[in-house]
Amino acid sequence: MAEAPYRLVLLRHGESQWNEKNLFTGWVDVDLNEKGEKEAVRGGELLAAEGFLPDVLHTSLLRRAIRTAQIALDRADRHWIPVRRSWRLNERHYGALQGKDKAQTLAEFGEEQFMLWRRSYDTPPPVLAADAEYSQAHDSRYAQLPADVRPQTECLKDVVERMLPYWYDAIVPDLADGRTVLVTAHGNSLRALVKHLDGISDADIAALNIPTGIPLLYELDADFKPLTKGGRYLDPEAAKIAAEAVANQGKKK
Amino acid sequence: MAEAPYRLVLLRHGESQWNEKNLFTGWVDVDLNEKGEKEAVRGGELLAAEGFLPDVLHTSLLRRAIRTAQIALDRADRHWIPVRRSWRLNERHYGALQGKDKAQTLAEFGEEQFMLWRRSYDTPPPVLAADAEYSQAHDSRYAQLPADVRPQTECLKDVVERMLPYWYDAIVPDLADGRTVLVTAHGNSLRALVKHLDGISDADIAALNIPTGIPLLYELDADFKPLTKGGRYLDPEAAKIAAEAVANQGKKK
Repeated sequence: MAEAPYRLVLLRHGESQWNEKNLFTGWVDVDLNEKGEKEAVRGGELLAAEGFLPDVLHTSLLRRAIRTAQIALDRADRHWIPVRRSWRLNERHYGALQGKDKAQTLAEFGEEQFMLWRRSYDTPPPVLAADAEYSQAHDSRYAQLPADVRPQTECLKDVVERMLPYWYDAIVPDLADGRTVLVTAHGNSLRALVKHLDGISDADIAALNIPTGIPLLYELDADFKPLTKGGRYLDPEAAKIAAEAVANQGKKK
Repeated sequence: MAEAPYRLVLLRHGESQWNEKNLFTGWVDVDLNEKGEKEAVRGGELLAAEGFLPDVLHTSLLRRAIRTAQIALDRADRHWIPVRRSWRLNERHYGALQGKDKAQTLAEFGEEQFMLWRRSYDTPPPVLAADAEYSQAHDSRYAQLPADVRPQTECLKDVVERMLPYWYDAIVPDLADGRTVLVTAHGNSLRALVKHLDGISDADIAALNIPTGIPLLYELDADFKPLTKGGRYLDPEAAKIAAEAVANQGKKK
């Protein structure tokens, strides 16, 4: 086991084609848009400029996180590092909201219900039927997951519960070996991880937004707890502006 | 252990910036050019069209093979499969020829010496000095390889010897598990593998050329030997034309 501090870098995927359209995405496997690709390039430049060169990558099974990592690592000249992937790093499954317009959903169900689905810790949206257009019930990448493990909808609490085993079993061992670990994932799987790392309460996590494409560095002590709560964005100014924009998403016309 | 036949797909990276310039590349980490990116897209389309969907990817540590796999798998909607990488799948190390113009080298050393370096089984080019411009002596991706294992030049025999342990230890176990395995690698690391699979003699391997960007499918029996010698290109007509072009590379003006 290597000595602390351990180095962990979190990177939320760049803007996707559905961020742009203001649709709930969840497990739907949409690609980055052009802005998202540029964000990924910039993420890689920030890593290289600050000398935080990842030794191993952990990603979700979703294209927007996979490509963000590929583009950023290529730019940082670290395209050759080992890659590990897991559905446990996937975005929160958005249930019956997947594929729905955010503004339209807000108008249809009202702000209270809308914010409950978006930000309450333990209220999942209605389940997504297996035969629905945007269901992943027949997606071969999840074929080995038994039906009772594979989500049909999730609240953030569910994401924390399915993400944490991967943290302990796959990411912590890489950190313990002294590797600088890059995790490229999603708004909610990263919020789940940050909640755990920083010990944020179920209530307070609602206010936390993670911006796209800006590497967030954590240095961790021997117990894999942050030396500095909240970590450090490699571009703090841009992170602040972007986080505020994320908080306002439901209000977009 | 799953039952034979096992399915192996070999894919040589698309054209690189240095293929285009007619330079010896070896371990120099050049990127694909635009044609190479298109070849990778087409490779992915062929995989998808014929239903040879890889369950696991093995690549070298070089960008042109890594990106070929990323582009092809993205196109085949298999971007999420597990990835394994090894320097043992790298291109042949071209020693002191790395970075040199092929036509110029031919003119300088004459056809006999040129063809000996390019095609003899056991004559490596002169070693590349550690402080030479195109040396990988200080490349962090090989830092854990001891000096006596890390090549400074290689003939094809050397490539066979360093590639085979990876075949037995990493690729065969994936095949034995019943996975369709994609190997994206290089002209000479793939020639080394094909030599082993098809039992080609040290003399006859000189005449074998593998075209870029066209998936080559092998079905293997219980002893991991080909059911059909030479396998099957997913686009046999294009493969034939391309292989002839590779054979003529030294003659380009």
